Amino acid sequence: MKIIIVGATGTIGRHVAGSLEKEHEVIRVGSKSGDIQADITAPESIDNLFRQAGAFDALVCTAGDAYFGPWKTMTDREFRRGIDSKLMGQINLVLIGQHYINPKGSFTLTSGVLTQDPVLGGANPSAANGAIEAFVRAAAIELENGVRINAVSPTVVEESPEYFSYFPGHIPVSMKQVVYGYLKSVLGAGTGQVIKVY
Amino acid sequence: MKIIIVGATGTIGRHVAGSLEKEHEVIRVGSKSGDIQADITAPESIDNLFRQAGAFDALVCTAGDAYFGPWKTMTDREFRRGIDSKLMGQINLVLIGQHYINPKGSFTLTSGVLTQDPVLGGANPSAANGAIEAFVRAAAIELENGVRINAVSPTVVEESPEYFSYFPGHIPVSMKQVVYGYLKSVLGAGTGQVIKVY
Repeated sequence: MKIIIVGATGTIGRHVAGSLEKEHEVIRVGSKSGDIQADITAPESIDNLFRQAGAFDALVCTAGDAYFGPWKTMTDREFRRGIDSKLMGQINLVLIGQHYINPKGSFTLTSGVLTQDPVLGGANPSAANGAIEAFVRAAAIELENGVRINAVSPTVVEESPEYFSYFPGHIPVSMKQVVYGYLKSVLGAGTGQVIKVY
Repeated sequence: MKIIIVGATGTIGRHVAGSLEKEHEVIRVGSKSGDIQADITAPESIDNLFRQAGAFDALVCTAGDAYFGPWKTMTDREFRRGIDSKLMGQINLVLIGQHYINPKGSFTLTSGVLTQDPVLGGANPSAANGAIEAFVRAAAIELENGVRINAVSPTVVEESPEYFSYFPGHIPVSMKQVVYGYLKSVLGAGTGQVIKVY
């Protein structure tokens, strides 16, 4: 398969790419590095990405920024960070990518545990994740030609201890477990699923 | 209690307002009518609304637009309708309203059945609803002074048969049942809840 990984230079994306490239052609997309550069907050940049990559079989997105910070000073401005990146960035990858994907292809987006189990300072990623999870259920009944879509929802990973203090009591999972989530979506047959890795 | 109802001139809002005004002071907010006019897609208009209304005990939002339409031609532009209105409009009512609400007050937002159970053409409201439901769980652990927040998630209502064809097989609920959902949030003690009316 020809697999586009958006966010392939990030912590999770690097491991997903490393796992999939053993048997598949992997195209790494980053904001500033990788085989192709793209800014997912800009629809024209996403369109340009697909034009360069050409027809593909699977897209995995592990990219998407959101705002973490104090609640009392949170305004529309801070909240738009996650709206424009983790939420609309990932959704635009699907809305535009649907016109380039091969039959029986798949989209795999990334949400996260904060949809269900919030932490202080994280209302913005919670909202973005909740939108992504509802979106994949909705998109799954729209996509034709056997094209599938799922979201992987990881919690904090063992390999990123710098985040532990923001997720008190959340039991960290291993990167290997998170990678399995993406493999299930890309190589499995499910659609409209939220694959929880927690 | 002093209760602000945003969307009080709409189908659901009118009934919620009618039920609450028997024992409470109700301030009706509409985009073009009501006691106060506000455009929830504009943060400055929301701020202006709260300055006119003054301190309050409960805010109910039954307003919020989203895009219904064909999947294949859906782009960032159409999708932003629900993002700017039903999603950010409602979230900005809370982010701004937190600075005006009385202790032990409550926010009640509106999501909908499409979070869990999508219909064709409705990916945009699905995503907006999913964001609102995750947001109320996150906001519930942030709000201080006993302030609560919930979402009411209705399905199609018996009184709006014009929507039945878009929701095949969804069992319509009565407007009375939907109003009970809002009463539970405003007059009850729960927080961080999605009150499903389906």
